[in-house]
Amino acid sequence: MRLTQFSDYAMRLLIYAAVHGDRLVTIEEVAGVYAISRGHLMKVANTLTRNDILRSVRGRSGGLALARPPVSIGLGEVLRLTEPDFALVECFGEDSTCRIMPSCRLRGILSGALGAFMAEIDRYTLKDLVLDPAAFGLDRPAA
Amino acid sequence: MRLTQFSDYAMRLLIYAAVHGDRLVTIEEVAGVYAISRGHLMKVANTLTRNDILRSVRGRSGGLALARPPVSIGLGEVLRLTEPDFALVECFGEDSTCRIMPSCRLRGILSGALGAFMAEIDRYTLKDLVLDPAAFGLDRPAA
Repeated sequence: MRLTQFSDYAMRLLIYAAVHGDRLVTIEEVAGVYAISRGHLMKVANTLTRNDILRSVRGRSGGLALARPPVSIGLGEVLRLTEPDFALVECFGEDSTCRIMPSCRLRGILSGALGAFMAEIDRYTLKDLVLDPAAFGLDRPAA
Repeated sequence: MRLTQFSDYAMRLLIYAAVHGDRLVTIEEVAGVYAISRGHLMKVANTLTRNDILRSVRGRSGGLALARPPVSIGLGEVLRLTEPDFALVECFGEDSTCRIMPSCRLRGILSGALGAFMAEIDRYTLKDLVLDPAAFGLDRPAA
Protein backbone atom coordinates (compact mmCIF):
# COMPACT_ATOMS: atom_id res chain seq x y z
CA MET A 1 0.00 0.00 0.00
CA ARG A 2 1.56 3.22 -1.12
CA LEU A 3 0.82 6.85 -1.64
CA THR A 4 1.98 8.31 -4.93
CA GLN A 5 5.32 10.06 -5.33
CA PHE A 6 3.19 13.08 -6.21
CA SER A 7 1.79 13.14 -2.66
CA ASP A 8 5.23 12.59 -1.18
CA TYR A 9 6.66 15.54 -3.12
CA ALA A 10 3.67 17.71 -2.24
CA MET A 11 4.31 17.16 1.47
CA ARG A 12 8.02 17.92 1.06
CA LEU A 13 7.32 21.10 -0.90
CA LEU A 14 4.78 22.30 1.67
CA ILE A 15 7.14 21.58 4.56
CA TYR A 16 9.87 23.54 2.79
CA ALA A 17 7.54 26.47 2.14
CA ALA A 18 6.28 26.39 5.74
CA VAL A 19 9.79 26.36 7.17
CA HIS A 20 10.65 29.44 5.11
CA GLY A 21 7.55 31.40 6.08
CA ASP A 22 6.97 34.45 3.93
CA ARG A 23 10.16 34.15 1.91
CA LEU A 24 9.40 33.08 -1.64
CA VAL A 25 11.00 29.75 -2.50
CA THR A 26 11.77 28.47 -5.98
CA ILE A 27 11.26 25.09 -7.61
CA GLU A 28 15.00 24.96 -8.42
CA GLU A 29 15.86 25.47 -4.77
CA VAL A 30 13.41 22.86 -3.49
CA ALA A 31 14.44 20.31 -6.14
CA GLY A 32 18.06 20.89 -5.18
CA VAL A 33 17.52 20.56 -1.44
CA TYR A 34 15.67 17.25 -1.71
CA ALA A 35 17.57 16.06 -4.80
CA ILE A 36 14.32 15.31 -6.61
CA SER A 37 13.04 15.97 -10.13
CA ARG A 38 12.40 19.61 -11.00
CA GLY A 39 9.77 18.61 -13.58
CA HIS A 40 7.76 16.48 -11.16
CA LEU A 41 7.97 19.19 -8.54
CA MET A 42 6.67 21.75 -11.00
CA LYS A 43 3.54 19.67 -11.61
CA VAL A 44 3.03 19.30 -7.87
CA ALA A 45 3.42 23.07 -7.41
CA ASN A 46 0.85 23.72 -10.14
CA THR A 47 -1.71 21.50 -8.45
CA LEU A 48 -1.14 23.13 -5.07
CA THR A 49 -1.26 26.64 -6.54
CA ARG A 50 -4.45 25.95 -8.47
CA ASN A 51 -6.05 24.79 -5.25
CA ASP A 52 -5.09 27.78 -3.15
CA ILE A 53 -2.60 25.96 -0.97
CA LEU A 54 0.44 27.67 -2.46
CA ARG A 55 0.53 31.11 -4.03
CA SER A 56 2.81 31.88 -6.91
CA VAL A 57 4.51 35.22 -7.54
CA ARG A 58 5.78 35.72 -11.08
CA GLY A 59 8.88 37.54 -12.18
CA ARG A 60 12.60 37.55 -11.62
CA SER A 61 12.39 37.58 -7.85
CA GLY A 62 9.23 35.51 -7.87
CA GLY A 63 8.56 32.14 -6.34
CA LEU A 64 6.17 30.21 -4.15
CA ALA A 65 4.84 30.62 -0.63
CA LEU A 66 1.99 29.14 1.36
CA ALA A 67 -1.32 30.72 0.41
CA ARG A 68 -2.62 30.24 3.95
CA PRO A 69 -1.19 29.75 7.45
CA PRO A 70 0.07 26.18 8.03
CA VAL A 71 -2.61 25.56 10.65
CA SER A 72 -5.32 26.00 8.01
CA ILE A 73 -3.78 23.50 5.55
CA GLY A 74 -5.12 20.09 6.50
CA LEU A 75 -3.01 17.07 5.57
CA GLY A 76 -6.17 15.27 4.46
CA GLU A 77 -7.03 18.19 2.21
CA VAL A 78 -3.61 17.89 0.58
CA LEU A 79 -3.82 14.11 0.11
CA ARG A 80 -7.28 14.35 -1.43
CA LEU A 81 -5.79 16.72 -4.02
CA THR A 82 -2.62 14.79 -4.72
CA GLU A 83 -3.79 11.17 -4.73
CA PRO A 84 -5.31 10.45 -8.16
CA ASP A 85 -7.80 8.10 -6.53
CA PHE A 86 -8.33 5.97 -3.49
CA ALA A 87 -9.26 2.91 -5.52
CA LEU A 88 -7.81 0.32 -3.17
CA VAL A 89 -8.85 -2.54 -5.43
CA GLU A 90 -10.25 -2.81 -8.94
CA CYS A 91 -13.90 -2.69 -7.94
CA PHE A 92 -13.50 0.84 -6.54
CA GLY A 93 -13.04 2.07 -10.11
CA GLU A 94 -15.62 2.63 -12.79
CA ASP A 95 -14.46 -0.13 -15.09
CA SER A 96 -14.56 -3.03 -12.69
CA THR A 97 -14.94 -6.40 -14.35
CA CYS A 98 -14.99 -8.46 -11.16
CA ARG A 99 -18.01 -10.68 -11.46
CA ILE A 100 -18.67 -11.07 -7.74
CA MET A 101 -18.93 -7.32 -7.21
CA PRO A 102 -22.70 -7.27 -6.54
CA SER A 103 -22.45 -9.66 -3.60
CA CYS A 104 -18.91 -9.05 -2.34
CA ARG A 105 -18.52 -7.26 0.98
CA LEU A 106 -14.80 -6.52 0.59
CA ARG A 107 -15.41 -3.13 -0.94
CA GLY A 108 -17.44 -1.97 2.04
CA ILE A 109 -14.84 -3.26 4.49
CA LEU A 110 -11.99 -1.56 2.64
CA SER A 111 -14.01 1.66 2.42
CA GLY A 112 -14.42 1.60 6.16
CA ALA A 113 -10.69 1.08 6.65
CA LEU A 114 -9.92 3.93 4.24
CA GLY A 115 -12.29 6.13 6.22
CA ALA A 116 -10.38 5.29 9.41
CA PHE A 117 -7.09 6.12 7.64
CA MET A 118 -8.32 9.52 6.44
CA ALA A 119 -9.98 10.35 9.78
CA GLU A 120 -6.58 9.92 11.39
CA ILE A 121 -4.85 12.07 8.74
CA ASP A 122 -7.56 14.72 9.11
CA ARG A 123 -6.49 15.30 12.71
CA TYR A 124 -3.34 17.03 11.48
CA THR A 125 -2.38 20.18 9.61
CA LEU A 126 0.83 21.40 8.05
CA LYS A 127 1.55 23.19 11.31
CA ASP A 128 1.92 19.82 13.05
CA LEU A 129 4.63 18.89 10.55
CA VAL A 130 6.77 21.95 11.23
CA LEU A 131 6.48 22.51 14.95
CA ASP A 132 10.21 23.24 15.04
CA PRO A 133 11.21 24.82 11.70
CA ALA A 134 14.86 25.23 12.68
CA ALA A 135 15.23 21.48 13.26
CA PHE A 136 14.82 20.75 9.56
CA GLY A 137 18.15 22.25 8.57
CA LEU A 138 16.49 23.48 5.39
CA ASP A 139 18.55 26.59 4.87
CA ARG A 140 18.61 28.05 1.43
CA PRO A 141 21.39 26.33 -0.52
CA ALA A 142 24.46 28.41 -1.26
CA ALA A 143 24.09 30.27 -4.57
CA MET B 1 -3.59 4.83 -2.59
CA ARG B 2 -3.91 1.29 -3.79
CA LEU B 3 -3.47 -2.27 -2.72
CA THR B 4 -1.55 -4.50 -5.10
CA GLN B 5 -3.26 -6.65 -7.70
CA PHE B 6 -1.69 -9.53 -5.77
CA SER B 7 -3.85 -8.71 -2.74
CA ASP B 8 -6.91 -8.26 -4.91
CA TYR B 9 -6.44 -11.69 -6.51
CA ALA B 10 -5.75 -13.27 -3.11
CA MET B 11 -9.09 -12.03 -1.81
CA ARG B 12 -10.91 -13.28 -4.92
CA LEU B 13 -9.26 -16.69 -4.71
CA LEU B 14 -10.09 -17.05 -1.02
CA ILE B 15 -13.69 -16.00 -1.59
CA TYR B 16 -13.98 -18.57 -4.36
CA ALA B 17 -12.49 -21.31 -2.18
CA ALA B 18 -14.74 -20.35 0.74
CA VAL B 19 -17.86 -20.42 -1.40
CA HIS B 20 -16.98 -23.94 -2.55
CA GLY B 21 -16.27 -25.30 0.93
CA ASP B 22 -14.51 -28.64 0.89
CA ARG B 23 -14.60 -29.13 -2.88
CA LEU B 24 -11.12 -28.72 -4.35
CA VAL B 25 -10.95 -25.85 -6.81
CA THR B 26 -8.36 -25.40 -9.53
CA ILE B 27 -6.36 -22.41 -10.69
CA GLU B 28 -7.76 -22.86 -14.21
CA GLU B 29 -11.30 -22.70 -12.90
CA VAL B 30 -10.70 -19.61 -10.74
CA ALA B 31 -8.81 -17.80 -13.51
CA GLY B 32 -11.69 -18.56 -15.87
CA VAL B 33 -14.44 -17.42 -13.51
CA TYR B 34 -12.81 -14.06 -12.81
CA ALA B 35 -11.19 -13.74 -16.26
CA ILE B 36 -7.80 -13.01 -14.70
CA SER B 37 -4.27 -14.25 -15.37
CA ARG B 38 -3.61 -17.89 -14.56
CA GLY B 39 0.09 -17.15 -13.96
CA HIS B 40 -0.54 -14.37 -11.47
CA LEU B 41 -3.12 -16.47 -9.69
CA MET B 42 -0.64 -19.34 -9.39
CA LYS B 43 1.83 -17.09 -7.55
CA VAL B 44 -0.93 -15.91 -5.23
CA ALA B 45 -1.93 -19.52 -4.54
CA ASN B 46 1.67 -20.42 -3.73
CA THR B 47 1.95 -17.63 -1.18
CA LEU B 48 -1.34 -18.58 0.46
CA THR B 49 -0.44 -22.28 0.52
CA ARG B 50 3.00 -21.64 1.99
CA ASN B 51 1.37 -19.67 4.77
CA ASP B 52 -1.23 -22.25 5.71
CA ILE B 53 -4.22 -20.33 4.42
CA LEU B 54 -4.86 -22.63 1.48
CA ARG B 55 -4.03 -26.30 1.29
CA SER B 56 -2.99 -27.91 -1.94
CA VAL B 57 -3.80 -31.47 -2.98
CA ARG B 58 -1.65 -32.84 -5.79
CA GLY B 59 -2.64 -35.19 -8.57
CA ARG B 60 -5.18 -35.49 -11.33
CA SER B 61 -8.19 -34.73 -9.14
CA GLY B 62 -6.19 -32.36 -6.97
CA GLY B 63 -6.70 -28.68 -6.33
CA LEU B 64 -6.94 -26.09 -3.60
CA ALA B 65 -9.16 -25.63 -0.56
CA LEU B 66 -9.04 -23.46 2.52
CA ALA B 67 -6.59 -24.82 5.08
CA ARG B 68 -8.74 -23.47 7.92
CA PRO B 69 -12.35 -22.45 8.48
CA PRO B 70 -13.15 -19.00 7.03
CA VAL B 71 -13.74 -17.56 10.49
CA SER B 72 -10.12 -18.21 11.41
CA ILE B 73 -8.66 -16.47 8.34
CA GLY B 74 -8.32 -12.81 9.24
CA LEU B 75 -8.40 -10.30 6.38
CA GLY B 76 -5.53 -8.42 8.02
CA GLU B 77 -3.51 -11.63 8.14
CA VAL B 78 -4.04 -12.05 4.40
CA LEU B 79 -3.12 -8.45 3.54
CA ARG B 80 0.05 -8.61 5.61
CA LEU B 81 1.09 -11.62 3.52
CA THR B 82 0.12 -10.23 0.15
CA GLU B 83 1.17 -6.59 0.34
CA PRO B 84 4.91 -6.43 -0.36
CA ASP B 85 5.23 -3.53 2.05
CA PHE B 86 3.25 -0.78 3.66
CA ALA B 87 5.78 1.88 2.73
CA LEU B 88 3.33 4.71 2.22
CA VAL B 89 6.08 7.15 1.29
CA GLU B 90 9.78 6.84 0.54
CA CYS B 91 10.98 7.35 4.12
CA PHE B 92 9.21 4.15 5.25
CA GLY B 93 11.74 2.17 3.23
CA GLU B 94 15.33 1.37 4.07
CA ASP B 95 16.87 3.43 1.30
CA SER B 96 15.29 6.75 2.06
CA THR B 97 17.25 9.72 0.81
CA CYS B 98 14.87 12.38 2.11
CA ARG B 99 17.06 14.82 3.97
CA ILE B 100 14.42 16.04 6.41
CA MET B 101 13.71 12.53 7.68
CA PRO B 102 15.23 13.04 11.14
CA SER B 103 12.95 15.94 12.00
CA CYS B 104 9.87 15.22 9.88
CA ARG B 105 6.72 14.13 11.67
CA LEU B 106 4.89 12.91 8.57
CA ARG B 107 6.11 9.35 8.95
CA GLY B 108 4.66 9.09 12.45
CA ILE B 109 1.34 10.56 11.33
CA LEU B 110 1.08 8.19 8.36
CA SER B 111 2.02 5.24 10.57
CA GLY B 112 -0.82 6.14 12.89
CA ALA B 113 -3.22 6.31 9.96
CA LEU B 114 -2.00 2.98 8.64
CA GLY B 115 -2.56 1.50 12.10
CA ALA B 116 -6.15 2.77 12.04
CA PHE B 117 -6.62 1.23 8.57
CA MET B 118 -5.33 -2.18 9.65
CA ALA B 119 -7.25 -2.11 12.94
CA GLU B 120 -10.42 -1.75 10.91
CA ILE B 121 -9.44 -4.59 8.53
CA ASP B 122 -8.53 -6.78 11.50
CA ARG B 123 -12.15 -6.70 12.63
CA TYR B 124 -13.07 -9.00 9.76
CA THR B 125 -12.42 -12.55 8.63
CA LEU B 126 -13.04 -14.41 5.40
CA LYS B 127 -16.34 -15.56 6.91
CA ASP B 128 -17.59 -11.96 6.83
CA LEU B 129 -16.94 -11.87 3.09
CA VAL B 130 -19.03 -14.94 2.31
CA LEU B 131 -22.00 -14.69 4.65
CA ASP B 132 -24.23 -15.80 1.78
CA PRO B 133 -22.22 -18.14 -0.48
CA ALA B 134 -25.11 -18.74 -2.89
CA ALA B 135 -25.37 -15.02 -3.67
CA PHE B 136 -22.00 -15.03 -5.45
CA GLY B 137 -23.21 -17.06 -8.40
CA LEU B 138 -19.81 -18.75 -8.47
CA ASP B 139 -20.89 -22.11 -9.79
CA ARG B 140 -18.25 -24.25 -11.37
CA PRO B 141 -17.98 -23.28 -15.03
CA ALA B 142 -19.29 -25.80 -17.54
CA ALA B 143 -16.55 -28.22 -18.59
